[in-house]
Amino acid sequence: MRIGELSRATGVAIPTIKYYVREGLLPAGRLTSPNQARYDDGHVRRLRLIRGLMDVGGLSVAAVREVLAAVDAPEEPVHKVLGAAQEAIAPPQAAAPDGIEEARRTVEGLIRRRGWRVAPQNPSVEALAVALATLQGLGHGDFEELLEGYADACERVADADLAWVGRNAEVDRLVESVVVGTVVGDAVLSALRRLAHVDASARRYEGGETV
Amino acid sequence: MRIGELSRATGVAIPTIKYYVREGLLPAGRLTSPNQARYDDGHVRRLRLIRGLMDVGGLSVAAVREVLAAVDAPEEPVHKVLGAAQEAIAPPQAAAPDGIEEARRTVEGLIRRRGWRVAPQNPSVEALAVALATLQGLGHGDFEELLEGYADACERVADADLAWVGRNAEVDRLVESVVVGTVVGDAVLSALRRLAHVDASARRYEGGETV
Repeated sequence: MRIGELSRATGVAIPTIKYYVREGLLPAGRLTSPNQARYDDGHVRRLRLIRGLMDVGGLSVAAVREVLAAVDAPEEPVHKVLGAAQEAIAPPQAAAPDGIEEARRTVEGLIRRRGWRVAPQNPSVEALAVALATLQGLGHGDFEELLEGYADACERVADADLAWVGRNAEVDRLVESVVVGTVVGDAVLSALRRLAHVDASARRYEGGETV
Repeated sequence: MRIGELSRATGVAIPTIKYYVREGLLPAGRLTSPNQARYDDGHVRRLRLIRGLMDVGGLSVAAVREVLAAVDAPEEPVHKVLGAAQEAIAPPQAAAPDGIEEARRTVEGLIRRRGWRVAPQNPSVEALAVALATLQGLGHGDFEELLEGYADACERVADADLAWVGRNAEVDRLVESVVVGTVVGDAVLSALRRLAHVDASARRYEGGETV
């Protein structure tokens, strides 16, 4: 198809498509003349992935580039792929707030108690410590009491996620499933948590009024 | 305290503090002479909140301004406050992808089945529909099978969250608790889910290797 058809098929404007090609997110089309390139279903699929990661996952162009590098890497064992994908989609690390050392010890203790097989340098370990230190700095250190309950919930969710990824494990789509499931799955979980908040609040405080 | 002390107490650079004052995120200090202003513990606290929302929650300056307007609003019943806070921190709405109508029906069905008292115009309803339509467009429509399990987990988390907010319900800190618990809580949940992924993957595929 021509670039106009690619644009219509994906809802992405032509200048934006050209920008993604320049930025290395999207492979160039196959040139059929000096001024015309042809695109195929692979481009449609890739454009949808780029937009999903940006629009739903909130990823930057730079982060999308890293994620796509993982998606395009030669096949690796599932467990390695998951680690590489997590590395690529880890949010940029904020400056360590006051109390980060204590928060790191809290996270280490949690991981030990749960028996989670996680390397200390996993980026989510530090992300969690930064979040906890931030809560502490805001006078909300007692949020830590919720951690075990959150961890229970996440273990259940993660088991279901892995079973889902395992079902989708044709090799060439495995990394994509991991990335999409992680990034878009975060958005799904965040939206559901907010809806459940509204319901829990309605039951607790309002006897049924909706907001 | 002077602005230099405020900067040292919070780790926020002086030009950044001045920028937040210009942008209306932070109240100006009390002028003690034409060139000197004094700041107090309220400024320290507010600066920490601004940085927490930005660094951990990933909120923009504009989003922080809206959230702080909710925090500073006159007291309201808990349930209304929660709705207002959710409105303020809702991510900017992405363009509706193909399949959004069907995804909206899926979300409506889920809310009905769970008996959640949520208004159809709640921003998280649309955010969830956009995420589901995106998954569908990427050929991952079967992710929907995970929805009920996610909803179970979120109900449990939300009950604990609301109990926590209820304990912190001195009037002047209630909105802040809601906002911080929602925004930073998302970051905590996302980090824990990724750690649980690594552990579930280790158990499932690797017999214990850590990444």
